Amino acid sequence: MKFIEKFNSIKEKNSILCVGLDPDLLLIPPSLLGEKKPILNFCQEIIDATSDLVCGYKLNTAFFEASSGFDTMAEVREYINDALITIADAKRGDIGNTARMYAKAFFDNMGFDAITLSPYMGYDAIEPFASYKDKMSFILCLSSNPGSKDFEELLVQEIDRYPLSVQPLWKSVARKVNEWNENNNLGLVVGATKPDALQTVREITNIPLLVPGIGKQGGDIRDVAGYGGVIIPTVSRSVIYASRNKDFAEAARKKTEEFISMLP
Amino acid sequence: MKFIEKFNSIKEKNSILCVGLDPDLLLIPPSLLGEKKPILNFCQEIIDATSDLVCGYKLNTAFFEASSGFDTMAEVREYINDALITIADAKRGDIGNTARMYAKAFFDNMGFDAITLSPYMGYDAIEPFASYKDKMSFILCLSSNPGSKDFEELLVQEIDRYPLSVQPLWKSVARKVNEWNENNNLGLVVGATKPDALQTVREITNIPLLVPGIGKQGGDIRDVAGYGGVIIPTVSRSVIYASRNKDFAEAARKKTEEFISMLP
Repeated sequence: MKFIEKFNSIKEKNSILCVGLDPDLLLIPPSLLGEKKPILNFCQEIIDATSDLVCGYKLNTAFFEASSGFDTMAEVREYINDALITIADAKRGDIGNTARMYAKAFFDNMGFDAITLSPYMGYDAIEPFASYKDKMSFILCLSSNPGSKDFEELLVQEIDRYPLSVQPLWKSVARKVNEWNENNNLGLVVGATKPDALQTVREITNIPLLVPGIGKQGGDIRDVAGYGGVIIPTVSRSVIYASRNKDFAEAARKKTEEFISMLP
Repeated sequence: MKFIEKFNSIKEKNSILCVGLDPDLLLIPPSLLGEKKPILNFCQEIIDATSDLVCGYKLNTAFFEASSGFDTMAEVREYINDALITIADAKRGDIGNTARMYAKAFFDNMGFDAITLSPYMGYDAIEPFASYKDKMSFILCLSSNPGSKDFEELLVQEIDRYPLSVQPLWKSVARKVNEWNENNNLGLVVGATKPDALQTVREITNIPLLVPGIGKQGGDIRDVAGYGGVIIPTVSRSVIYASRNKDFAEAARKKTEEFISMLP
């Protein structure tokens, strides 16, 4: 099924909220550390406690790479009900033959519905992912971190446009990704701490937006969910580390319900 | 040992040439496919045949992720003589707490000497890697692919400079990475197919350059090795797929010798 159809059908039953799984051995409940697969168990309990509430899960690949590896990431992905959407937050970006390998790893081998990508190397680093018509690729546009001023917010001249236009790099990314969206399977990542930017992006394009940074990073879910089109607000640490005690899964569910109750 | 010292000591004994390991099950010799660990065996044979000639190896993470995973990547990294340099060609780039996990995976867990990173999210996506003083981080600057025109070559205005300067984004990346290089452990990735750009980069900064794209991608090793400072030309497919027959390791050695003989 196409990503957008899948998202639209599940958001009706559950909600548009996506939970981010960033499992860190130093932050998960100490009671799990004696288990054989603490990262897998932690993710499974969070999923069990929240899967009837959310549209899906975003797995942050770095946290799996730093702990139990790709096998555990594949097991967690497999554990998630196929009715929900699964996003590999991988921020990959490399030339064509390398990009094809990443697409194989995340789409074919692990069966993710979507991936996040870096725009820096341009279209041919994205095309191998876009060629999977049923899968979604979210291209990094504007992030929530201080470093976004270093390059994302630099003013660029687009000499191929008349009249000459000057705009921040992230707007140029939004405009080009919109142009490249022939298969209706590209989206953008825009940080939740910059709701004004969400409005600007919506003036450029109506493609799906993945909006991380809600909760711990400072983004307010009430500011991001009101724009048109597909918007997927994502909350990670505030939900999965709501408690470090044995009630962590219950606490994660309660926190998820709190965020959902703030949705318009 | 610091990366640059290690590189300088091994380049005297061997050469500055780095071999890129992009192991693809569809391209390795069919005779290996019956083995229990074809990817590992393939890489080991290439390493055995070339390790007295090269400064080290660049492992392309995508090819491991798409086949036998991080365990095999760690085994290949482990197999390489510690006197040689090892580079994880990962092009990672994400906010601080995620970047720390990638640094843990590649530097602490797998023991790579260096990594490649994406610049898009700015300094705080790079700082967690730069804080490893003995490790090297090569930031993507200008790539060899057609998509480099989409963003890397856009003209940007740097409003923090007077007089107002207009330059391609990749030059802005070179200038900022040079400024961020407090620990003398940052470098740049510049594609071998653009030797003019190498000269321009050298006018901006003398930091180490990783130069992939030699051979199959069209870069000529004679054009890239003549600039000052640390330059690490990298050849991948032309060496590792020099033959698909049982003589593949011998053919890889011969091809490596050919490239080295062209060095100034």
